[in-house]
Amino acid sequence: MITLHHLENSASIRILWLLEELGIEHQLVMYDRDPVTMLAPDEFKALSPFGTAPLLTDGDVAISESAAIIDYVLDRAPESDLRPGPDDPLRADYLFWFHAAGATVQPLLTTQFVHGIAGERAPFIVRGVAKGVLGAVDKAFTGPRLKAALSALNEQLTVHDFIAGNRFTTADIAFGYTLYMARLREGLLDPYPSVTDYVERMVQRPAWLRALERDGKFVGLPR
Amino acid sequence: MITLHHLENSASIRILWLLEELGIEHQLVMYDRDPVTMLAPDEFKALSPFGTAPLLTDGDVAISESAAIIDYVLDRAPESDLRPGPDDPLRADYLFWFHAAGATVQPLLTTQFVHGIAGERAPFIVRGVAKGVLGAVDKAFTGPRLKAALSALNEQLTVHDFIAGNRFTTADIAFGYTLYMARLREGLLDPYPSVTDYVERMVQRPAWLRALERDGKFVGLPR
Repeated sequence: MITLHHLENSASIRILWLLEELGIEHQLVMYDRDPVTMLAPDEFKALSPFGTAPLLTDGDVAISESAAIIDYVLDRAPESDLRPGPDDPLRADYLFWFHAAGATVQPLLTTQFVHGIAGERAPFIVRGVAKGVLGAVDKAFTGPRLKAALSALNEQLTVHDFIAGNRFTTADIAFGYTLYMARLREGLLDPYPSVTDYVERMVQRPAWLRALERDGKFVGLPR
Repeated sequence: MITLHHLENSASIRILWLLEELGIEHQLVMYDRDPVTMLAPDEFKALSPFGTAPLLTDGDVAISESAAIIDYVLDRAPESDLRPGPDDPLRADYLFWFHAAGATVQPLLTTQFVHGIAGERAPFIVRGVAKGVLGAVDKAFTGPRLKAALSALNEQLTVHDFIAGNRFTTADIAFGYTLYMARLREGLLDPYPSVTDYVERMVQRPAWLRALERDGKFVGLPR
C-alpha cells in the first residue's frame, strides 16, 4: 500500500487532496515541522531523495516532487479521468498547465517569497539596499514572468471552469497549493479576477476540505 | 505535422534533441534572439503562451514548457520506450527525475544565474553589498537545495548509466540542457564526478550532435 509521509503545512497538501479526490487507499504518516527552525524533521528528510516534501513511499520506492507523485498515484487509478490521455481533447492544455505549475509558476512564487524573507532578515544597516537589490531582481526577472503566466491563466479561466478545460483534472491539483499561496500574497491576484474566482471555487471542494481537516495546521505559506 | 519554433541557444535544444532521438517527422522554424537585448523576437513571443521557449505548434495547438512538449511529442511515438510506462520497473525513478529536472534543478540553476547577473549589473556604488545580499540568498536557499539534488543525482549515476536507470529515457533529455548549463558554471559539478562523466557521455550522442548542428549557435547559457 502507498504511504504519504505528510509534512504539515507544505506542498504535501496537494497529495493529500489528490488522495481524497480519488478515494484511493493509503497510509498516512504525519510529520510536524521543527518548532524553532520550521524545517522538516530529520527522520522525514532522511526518507526523501532531496529532503523535501511531498514524499510518498511504496515498498522500496521513495518518490518526491509533487508532479511525479501525482503521476505515480494516477497510475494506480487507471479508471480515473483526472489525467487526460493522449486521445483526450484536453491533452495539450492539460500537459502544458500541469507542467507549468511546477516548473514555472511555483518556482517564481517561491523565489519572490525567498527574496521577501531575505530582505526582512538582512542586517539593519544594509536592509534598505538589500530590499532594493532583491526588489530589482523581482522587477526585472520574476515579476514579468509571473505576470505573463498569471495573465495567460486568467484568460484560460475566463473561458473554462477548470485549468485544463471543462472538467477537473490533476492540473487543478498541481496548481492548488501554488494559487493558494499566491492568494495569500497581498494584492498579487487582484489583476486576475477569473483566477481569484476559480480559487474560491476550488477551496470549497469537499476533497480539499477533507485534506485541510486531515492536515490540521495548513495556513498556506511556508514558514 | 508538428512544428518546433526553435529559439537559438535556449532550452529549446531539448526538443530538437528529442526529435532527433525519435527521428519523428516535424517542421522547424528558426528564431534568432534580438542582437541587443538577447531576448526572443516579438513574433516568437506572440505565439508562446508565456512568451517563452521551447514552443511547439500542432494545428491550433500551441504548447510550451519543456516537459509538456516532451510528453506531447511522446504521445505521437507510442512505439518508443523513451517514457517508461506504469508497468515498467523504471517508472518511479523516471517520474521522479523527469519532474525534478524542470521543477527543482533548472529553477535553482536559473535563480543562481539571475542572481549572478544582477550582482554584476548593480550600480558600482552598491555592487559589493548587492553581491553580498544575493550571495547570502544562494548560500541559505538555492545552494543547499541544489547540492542536495546534485548529490542524489550523483548517487543515481554512480549506480546507473542513465538518469532513470539502465536505459536512455526522456528524463535524460529533460536534464540535458540543465546539466549542460551546470557544467559551464565553473566548479559547480566538480564534487559530482559521476554527473560529470555522464554529461560527457551524453554530449557524444549522435542525436545530440545533430541537434547542435541544426541549432548552429548553441553555447549552453542564456545570454
